[in-house]
Amino acid sequence: MDDTDLRPGERAIELDPPDDARLRFIGRIRTPFASRADCPRQGRHDGPDCVLELDPVWGGALDGIERFDFADVLYWLDRSRRDLVQQSPKSDGALRGTFALRSPVRPNPIGLSRVRVVRRDGPRLVVRGLDCLDGTPLLDIKPDACSYSPEAPRKAADVAES
Amino acid sequence: MDDTDLRPGERAIELDPPDDARLRFIGRIRTPFASRADCPRQGRHDGPDCVLELDPVWGGALDGIERFDFADVLYWLDRSRRDLVQQSPKSDGALRGTFALRSPVRPNPIGLSRVRVVRRDGPRLVVRGLDCLDGTPLLDIKPDACSYSPEAPRKAADVAES
Repeated sequence: MDDTDLRPGERAIELDPPDDARLRFIGRIRTPFASRADCPRQGRHDGPDCVLELDPVWGGALDGIERFDFADVLYWLDRSRRDLVQQSPKSDGALRGTFALRSPVRPNPIGLSRVRVVRRDGPRLVVRGLDCLDGTPLLDIKPDACSYSPEAPRKAADVAES
Repeated sequence: MDDTDLRPGERAIELDPPDDARLRFIGRIRTPFASRADCPRQGRHDGPDCVLELDPVWGGALDGIERFDFADVLYWLDRSRRDLVQQSPKSDGALRGTFALRSPVRPNPIGLSRVRVVRRDGPRLVVRGLDCLDGTPLLDIKPDACSYSPEAPRKAADVAES
C-alpha cells in the first residue's frame, strides 16, 4: 500500500504536529518481509517465525511470557501518513472511515497483531502472525487477554462477576 | 493500583525521556469510573455503556464501524509510570516481567481493550467492555481482526491461504 499518494475520493485534513504524548521504542521486529510488496495483508499463526528483539535493558520484562500461547504486539508504522479521515482501499472512489479499517494509515499509526508465542531466547521472543516490515519499531507486548487473569486481588467493582 | 510507589522487589530503571515518536489524542473516553477504586480489573462486554467521544474533525472516520460487533480500542494511560522491568502485582515480592502482565505500568502505557460496539451517534461511539478512568485520552479504534477482511485486492504473499 502506498501511503503517500491520495486515491480517488480520499481527502487529507490539515493538522498541527502531534505532541500529546511521546513513545519510546523498546526494540525492533525482525520479519522476512523486506518490502511492502513482501508483506501479507494479514499475519497468519502458521506463518513464518518473526523475532521481537528487545533492547537489552527490557529483556527481564519478558519473564513469565512463556506461560502464554498468544500475545498482543504493538508496533509503530513509521512510514504511514496520519491525516486521512476516509480512505478508499480498493482505489475505486468508495470511501470507508479510517476507524472502520485496519489500514496502517491512521492518526496514530500503531500496528496491533495477535501473535502465537513460539519461544523466548533471552531478550528475543520468537512469534508467528506478524505482517509488518523487517525493522519495524516495537512498542509493547501484552499477554493475551482471553487467557490472562489479573494477578492482583479482586476489587469491589469486579464482584458482579459470576 | 498505585503507579507511584514501588512494591517489595520492584526495581525502576533509569531512562532518557522518551521521544522516538509522538502521539495525537483523537478524543476522550467517557466511563462511569471516576477514580482508580471504581475501575474494574478487566472490562466486561455486559458492563456499563461507555462513550468514545472523538474530536469533531475525526467524526467521519467512524463511517462503516456499524458493520462490526467488536472493535479494538487503544488509549493512553497518562498516569502510569514507565520505568519498571518487573512488577509485583500481589505486593508479595514475587516478580513478573512487565510484558507478561497487562498492568498499566509499562514503557509505553497504551491501554488495549476489545469492546462490543453498541451504537454510533455522529462523532460518538457507544461501547461496552472498558475498564479505564473517565476522561482517558483516546488513541485509535480498529475493527475486530477476526471479523475483518482486508478490502484491498489480495497480494502474492497471501496466496498460501487456502
